[in-house]
Amino acid sequence: MSSFAIGVDLGGTNLRVAAVTEDGKLLEKVTLGTQVSRGRDAVIDAMCEAILGLLAKFSAANLLGVGIGVPGIIDKRSGLLRESPNLPGWEDYPVRDEIERRLKAPVVLENDANAAALGEAWLGAAKNAESMCMITLGTGVGGGIVLNGEIWHGMSGMAGELGHVTVNPEGPRCNCGNRGCVEQYASASAIMRMARQAIADGKDAVLTKAASDPEFSARVVYNLATQGNEAAKQIFHEAGKMLGIVVADLINVLNLHMYVVGGGAASAWSAFSPAMFEEVRLRSMVYAATAPPDREGETGASAEVKPTGRPYTIITHALLGSDAGLYGAARLPMIGKTALNRQTAG
Amino acid sequence: MSSFAIGVDLGGTNLRVAAVTEDGKLLEKVTLGTQVSRGRDAVIDAMCEAILGLLAKFSAANLLGVGIGVPGIIDKRSGLLRESPNLPGWEDYPVRDEIERRLKAPVVLENDANAAALGEAWLGAAKNAESMCMITLGTGVGGGIVLNGEIWHGMSGMAGELGHVTVNPEGPRCNCGNRGCVEQYASASAIMRMARQAIADGKDAVLTKAASDPEFSARVVYNLATQGNEAAKQIFHEAGKMLGIVVADLINVLNLHMYVVGGGAASAWSAFSPAMFEEVRLRSMVYAATAPPDREGETGASAEVKPTGRPYTIITHALLGSDAGLYGAARLPMIGKTALNRQTAG
Repeated sequence: MSSFAIGVDLGGTNLRVAAVTEDGKLLEKVTLGTQVSRGRDAVIDAMCEAILGLLAKFSAANLLGVGIGVPGIIDKRSGLLRESPNLPGWEDYPVRDEIERRLKAPVVLENDANAAALGEAWLGAAKNAESMCMITLGTGVGGGIVLNGEIWHGMSGMAGELGHVTVNPEGPRCNCGNRGCVEQYASASAIMRMARQAIADGKDAVLTKAASDPEFSARVVYNLATQGNEAAKQIFHEAGKMLGIVVADLINVLNLHMYVVGGGAASAWSAFSPAMFEEVRLRSMVYAATAPPDREGETGASAEVKPTGRPYTIITHALLGSDAGLYGAARLPMIGKTALNRQTAG
Repeated sequence: MSSFAIGVDLGGTNLRVAAVTEDGKLLEKVTLGTQVSRGRDAVIDAMCEAILGLLAKFSAANLLGVGIGVPGIIDKRSGLLRESPNLPGWEDYPVRDEIERRLKAPVVLENDANAAALGEAWLGAAKNAESMCMITLGTGVGGGIVLNGEIWHGMSGMAGELGHVTVNPEGPRCNCGNRGCVEQYASASAIMRMARQAIADGKDAVLTKAASDPEFSARVVYNLATQGNEAAKQIFHEAGKMLGIVVADLINVLNLHMYVVGGGAASAWSAFSPAMFEEVRLRSMVYAATAPPDREGETGASAEVKPTGRPYTIITHALLGSDAGLYGAARLPMIGKTALNRQTAG
């Protein structure tokens, strides 16, 4: 057996642990229910127990280390969680050092959206691209940028806040303090906000009826859109349009090979991607010069884009679903890049 | 004498050539009037003659190569100019190979905005930063991104089109095909457009009178703004606000140490930077977390920001003026990076 690493996806509700070989084969995946709500120490105990179980099971192979994807802002130097709204009580706790001490193995912490981008770059939609970025549509909108095979952290680990790019300067206020962030249009929360607005405007009786169900969600709006409901279709059109503005900006600024849209809301690809592509074609001269011929890259099926040697810009949906972050976390100790991008401060 | 390189700034009107030592000392600078209008062959003859003159003069030192900054899109692999509206007749001409043949020295071609960014990163406003980006405000708005000391070219050499980031989705149409690019607000042409609009709206008699002068320019609008003219002040406020949206986006996406505003229109720093900083503070959570204390970095005097070891985000104006591109061009053969950023196409 080749060398392997442990990947951990420490979500806001779930904790998942996997052993993955150096060539990307999943050895075993463990999902630990809703441990996160039981608090920091219980989570760390359960995580270490699961990891030790996997280490015992695969003790014949060479362990490269443990990578942990965490929702929040990480201080890469100190291995502390600096900010993590979904993990109360974890701020300024020495997560990395404590887990290293218990496991006696090198541990790499990473922001979960960055880990997901690395996972898609390694084994998913962007696996032929050395440089890519991923926009993750969830409750909010996150992002990760991979340049030459490594996560781009920036000066202080805060790069890749793609959800807070301004798409409408006078748009709705965002939790980040800005107005008109793409998160206010393309997240699950934004879909719900736009649905409530459409209902308040008296736009659609079907949507209004659906909203009275306690299980009303962005997914319900998506289902209505696929059934041809005009108000629901309009909401996803707006989300796709705003997402397209950000993707066009990123193409003009970074000229990467692949732009991957992932996260739960990305499953609504068929509802938002036509408006997204329309906007990108209008707004990015770099895309106009590098788009794949016959729009073959605009189907969302990146695997169908034949390797031609020509540098096309491909915009597609993620392929690994919720496992992207888990695979990306396992990848972290393999590339052994725990340092910040080389940057000096004034 | 240490090793040296030749830098060439092939502008739309002027051709300048300089010999610069490896440690950034200018040995000699030659400005060749308006040769560019005489056509491609005359320009290449004059350029090679000037370079050979400098090579003869400094023949005792070791020549590292020749770097040439060109306004246009360059195919880095082939050394061809792919698009250059200001250099008619140069498209698809093998500039690099022809000059290498004549000089028998390695030649590196680079987009002029990228060369200017590299110059400011080497010797100018960002000389303490390994990673930075520069927004160049001229007739249009250009840009260059330097990551870990190297220009980020992207997949096909088109990265850094910062002037075409959307700041107002419904804004004025841009030559690039988009609407509401920052170029439509913060370039010299945009200042003129906004001034003509203000005059058409009958906003200001002083501005209207100034516009009747055949020498009316963005600089005249700037002078009126510094004299307290409200309509002129409002124009620069709008330019600064829109520039601030792009800078905030770039901080959220890249989390670099330094953002440098350069080019001719950047001399109006005092008129547009207050609105720019106001917008960046409102719109970038990453800036909020990394801004220098007491706004010391917001004076535009980057040299006054003391090196503290803390990674602050510094937004400042360029320091090298029109020499940024010349120094950056000379830097190209020193870092010897003629290749594209490592990227594979699908």
